[in-house]
Amino acid sequence: MSEQIDLAEYLFTRLRQLGVESIHGVPGDYNLQALDYIEPAGISWVGNANELNAGYAADGYGRIKGISALITAFGVGELSAINAIGGSYAEMSPVVHIVGTPPLTAQNARICLHHSLGDGNFRIFADMYAKLTVAQANLTDPSTAPSMIDNTLRQCVLQSRPVYIELPTNMVKQKVSARSLKFPLNLSIPHNDEGFEDAEVELILARIYASKQPFIIVDGFTAALGITAEADELVRVTGFPTSTTSFGKGIVNESYPNFHGIYAGEAGKQVYRPWVESCDLILRIGPLSSDVNTYGFTTIPNPKYTIDFHRNSVEIGGTNSFTNVHVKPLLRKILDRIDKSKLPRYDPYPDLGNPRQQLEALTPAKTDGVIDQETFWQRISTFFRSGDIILTETGTPSIGGRDFVLPPQTTLINSGIWLSIGYMLGASQGAALAQRDIIRSVTTTHTLTPENPVTADAPPSSRSSQRTFSGRTILFIGDGSLQMTVQSLSDTIHNKLPLTIFLINNDGYTIERFIHGMKALYNDVQPWNYLHAPIYFGADPNDASYPIVTRRAANWGELFHVIGEKEVQEGKGLTIVEVFMEREDAPDALKKLVASAARRNSGQAPPTETNEEGPVRRGSDEKMIKAAG
Amino acid sequence: MSEQIDLAEYLFTRLRQLGVESIHGVPGDYNLQALDYIEPAGISWVGNANELNAGYAADGYGRIKGISALITAFGVGELSAINAIGGSYAEMSPVVHIVGTPPLTAQNARICLHHSLGDGNFRIFADMYAKLTVAQANLTDPSTAPSMIDNTLRQCVLQSRPVYIELPTNMVKQKVSARSLKFPLNLSIPHNDEGFEDAEVELILARIYASKQPFIIVDGFTAALGITAEADELVRVTGFPTSTTSFGKGIVNESYPNFHGIYAGEAGKQVYRPWVESCDLILRIGPLSSDVNTYGFTTIPNPKYTIDFHRNSVEIGGTNSFTNVHVKPLLRKILDRIDKSKLPRYDPYPDLGNPRQQLEALTPAKTDGVIDQETFWQRISTFFRSGDIILTETGTPSIGGRDFVLPPQTTLINSGIWLSIGYMLGASQGAALAQRDIIRSVTTTHTLTPENPVTADAPPSSRSSQRTFSGRTILFIGDGSLQMTVQSLSDTIHNKLPLTIFLINNDGYTIERFIHGMKALYNDVQPWNYLHAPIYFGADPNDASYPIVTRRAANWGELFHVIGEKEVQEGKGLTIVEVFMEREDAPDALKKLVASAARRNSGQAPPTETNEEGPVRRGSDEKMIKAAG
Repeated sequence: MSEQIDLAEYLFTRLRQLGVESIHGVPGDYNLQALDYIEPAGISWVGNANELNAGYAADGYGRIKGISALITAFGVGELSAINAIGGSYAEMSPVVHIVGTPPLTAQNARICLHHSLGDGNFRIFADMYAKLTVAQANLTDPSTAPSMIDNTLRQCVLQSRPVYIELPTNMVKQKVSARSLKFPLNLSIPHNDEGFEDAEVELILARIYASKQPFIIVDGFTAALGITAEADELVRVTGFPTSTTSFGKGIVNESYPNFHGIYAGEAGKQVYRPWVESCDLILRIGPLSSDVNTYGFTTIPNPKYTIDFHRNSVEIGGTNSFTNVHVKPLLRKILDRIDKSKLPRYDPYPDLGNPRQQLEALTPAKTDGVIDQETFWQRISTFFRSGDIILTETGTPSIGGRDFVLPPQTTLINSGIWLSIGYMLGASQGAALAQRDIIRSVTTTHTLTPENPVTADAPPSSRSSQRTFSGRTILFIGDGSLQMTVQSLSDTIHNKLPLTIFLINNDGYTIERFIHGMKALYNDVQPWNYLHAPIYFGADPNDASYPIVTRRAANWGELFHVIGEKEVQEGKGLTIVEVFMEREDAPDALKKLVASAARRNSGQAPPTETNEEGPVRRGSDEKMIKAAG
Repeated sequence: MSEQIDLAEYLFTRLRQLGVESIHGVPGDYNLQALDYIEPAGISWVGNANELNAGYAADGYGRIKGISALITAFGVGELSAINAIGGSYAEMSPVVHIVGTPPLTAQNARICLHHSLGDGNFRIFADMYAKLTVAQANLTDPSTAPSMIDNTLRQCVLQSRPVYIELPTNMVKQKVSARSLKFPLNLSIPHNDEGFEDAEVELILARIYASKQPFIIVDGFTAALGITAEADELVRVTGFPTSTTSFGKGIVNESYPNFHGIYAGEAGKQVYRPWVESCDLILRIGPLSSDVNTYGFTTIPNPKYTIDFHRNSVEIGGTNSFTNVHVKPLLRKILDRIDKSKLPRYDPYPDLGNPRQQLEALTPAKTDGVIDQETFWQRISTFFRSGDIILTETGTPSIGGRDFVLPPQTTLINSGIWLSIGYMLGASQGAALAQRDIIRSVTTTHTLTPENPVTADAPPSSRSSQRTFSGRTILFIGDGSLQMTVQSLSDTIHNKLPLTIFLINNDGYTIERFIHGMKALYNDVQPWNYLHAPIYFGADPNDASYPIVTRRAANWGELFHVIGEKEVQEGKGLTIVEVFMEREDAPDALKKLVASAARRNSGQAPPTETNEEGPVRRGSDEKMIKAAG
């Protein structure tokens, strides 16, 4: 590589080094010149139908691949994507948002350009994005641009949150030094102070050894913190009873005997909550204490008995709070030093339920029986296999999906706080593409079978060290949500991405019906002929390399027949299964969850606990405020 | 009406009084309770498939109806619509954006709620919107809420720009005083200082009388300033040669003999520009001096010879600048006092071309000839009739549509600065609905015929005093744009809105191809089967009250046949005509326009004029900065 290269070449080469193999976005004036540099850098251009979907897809890609990039035009383009970036920020997905901006001469002269507000202010949109990104770079100077790019990308990966890069059109071809590209970007986490770290490890181990009734809750930020392997190991080594949150589902191996499904507080089984509340030690890994992820704050344990592991801090027992400690090396050291003989043992082991056994104990479904929300999510689990990426859209899928019984090495994407409906369709396109990019980097022959998934080393920036991939991406989504972002189906077809969609057709916004307005017209949606999508969006029915499969299932018999079909199981092309459910049916947990939301919306405070040592009123708990930090 | 009513009832009753008969938006947690109050207030709920489309539709509704309302949920909902509101701000469409926010107890306790970033900050999104709205109200106190609502709505109408209202869920049912509702909201423009105004009128009239070569440019803010009738009268009374900009097209009656089409500066006919540049008086009404609306700033006349009429200021001859003057009463007084005998007369009248004669002089199209961009926009004009609302999407339609030859009382919507592709599909849904709402308020029998359009008094907040409506809304849009916001078709069908779409299928982003990357893959789009849309989106083919018509036109013969069909001419239901054009074809003006944009993007300054008295370099002209003000 020559010493001087074009600025855009620098940017895309660096992104490629970090693992970006495909870039999402929409072409537009002010970014077209930059797009010329994508393919030469060894990156594919996705070309989404609109920016919001591109942003959602980039978010999904980032959650699988550990880094992602999105390109939009200035003003109109970037604002259309801002909701997606808000979600990436709130839920920690590492997305590099590159905005093609007007040339600097025009910006400096404050001229009245299209895609601006006409007031000469070209900083407005960057200012908005400053609230939703952890680093920004405005590439106005060739001498500083490479280091600005490097610093910004580093923050994206290390904080696993979106960053924002402005690339003025006239800067695209400016020459910059290529020297730094000879070395990979330094993504190492700074070392913890050794003595400090040792003291913390000993303190935590002492609390673990001294506990009589320990419990582990693995939450969703675990993945973004890059400690999936450590969390899994902790669960395996200690043998402590373990649950996940809905946001954290899929991170630990659900086939462990000490895994007990999702702990759902007041929305869950009655036996479970009193037991958790009597625990004397609860380890929470990567917690997100949002209302929906904690079932109205009812799963947040007494801080006195809790150790929370955040990215750069650990809170111990509600009293000690260690900041400036990097959790990954800390957890590693705990695992290296743990003395299994000192661990408390349950005798007898508590009866917290076993999701796999519960699934097996279900009464067999009647062939002509209506598909019900209460058991669908358990029964569909037989369709899953190791290496699948499964996405559950906000609504009945996100809540129902908590009952999935997952094979090991299944990746689940569920929203923990942002809950933007429509997101999952875009994210599924991005996740399917990330999976394909990973598989292609391992094998070019594509002979994936259920017995032969691919295990890949993650790219340098990825949140997990190794994952298994089946090639299948499976989305569960409701009709109202799918309508939000339906163009993502076109993007999926255009890029020939394998995607299996279970479209829950229950005639409207069912989750909103339960919150308010069960029969209200405003919770209706226009009834589409959903299975016409491949024809409308121009899928080629004669392309054997990308089979199109559309099916309907209105009762259990039809559903089981469909998921037993060979081509549905393979999931090589686009598969859409329209599953009909009752309009006013919902999982029991959803009903309980929205009841508590309804109380809050009416201005009523959340229920107050009376047990002095138990959970206190969480509505004003400091922890909730910092939950996403 | 009782003295105390629910806050939400107050809000929607006031909106109804102002002329809001339909509200766009998407239901979601934090706004559902408020939606219950819409139908009882006599307003229809549209129920859009997503928020961006809802925002675009609200913008289109506002441009026709003089006011519009949009409801979204907090966070995810409002951010998805923010690009639309940016456009409403930049191009002056009066949209009331109501956001359902979390209950105040939760906001004040800063709890970690879904749809927030989880950091306890509930002000972030309102702060973003502050940059794009002219007034905001956070309804936290029942005693001040009515006056806050009134003040906010007043600013929306008077400034013709978006406002932002936060309605916390717990406030929806709070009791407020209904007293103010007995009186219509005061929307009167404050009187100008009489003496001051008289002096200005005399000064302007003196300049007019003294001129030898006067010229009028009617621009697009004229409509938003509520001076459409005055502008039209000025053109008619003076008989001065008149042009519009592309943003202002349709505002004045194009059948006047002194109307000469769009003045396109360097992108236009060569004879025109030198003539304009030798004018000694140019009256610009409601100017927007953006790059695209001024053909790269080449139509901005020498300030020395220009009088610019803005909303609250008049700039005379580049020296006098009167602020704090309301343009509507000022223009009215000028028209009342004008002495026709003192007006300069052209002898001979200059040869600036007559668009109607140019259309008639075109060589007849060959039946089997390819439909070309250079003449399509003129030839299609025979389809239009008085009372039509026509929308031209950014891309070849917006530029080609400048060649339309419009009958009197045709409304054209074209973007002047924001140019967000996809906008027009949403806006056409909103415009069609606004038109139906207006027609229904005049007649309930709906026997519109070409010979019998409806003439309606505008609602109190409307920008024009009286308009004629044919019942037809006609959209011209390219394939890439339609894909952006295609769910708007579902919204159109769901609400059974009459809409005629000419879909220009030219296989990708043609306007971008001309800017950069003629053959680049990133300017391709997935080829859809566009005419399958009604089936996919669930239109009922057996509903005689809402006929579905889909047609293809690949040559002139087919096109003329289609537009001659009775049901296409009626435009009673959804009509989609897919018009095939060449991928690399574009109107001549587009080629010229993008050439100047390309020069700017590469960092080259716009061309410098040498004529000392003529237009100077516009790239740093102060006027451009203030253009949207």
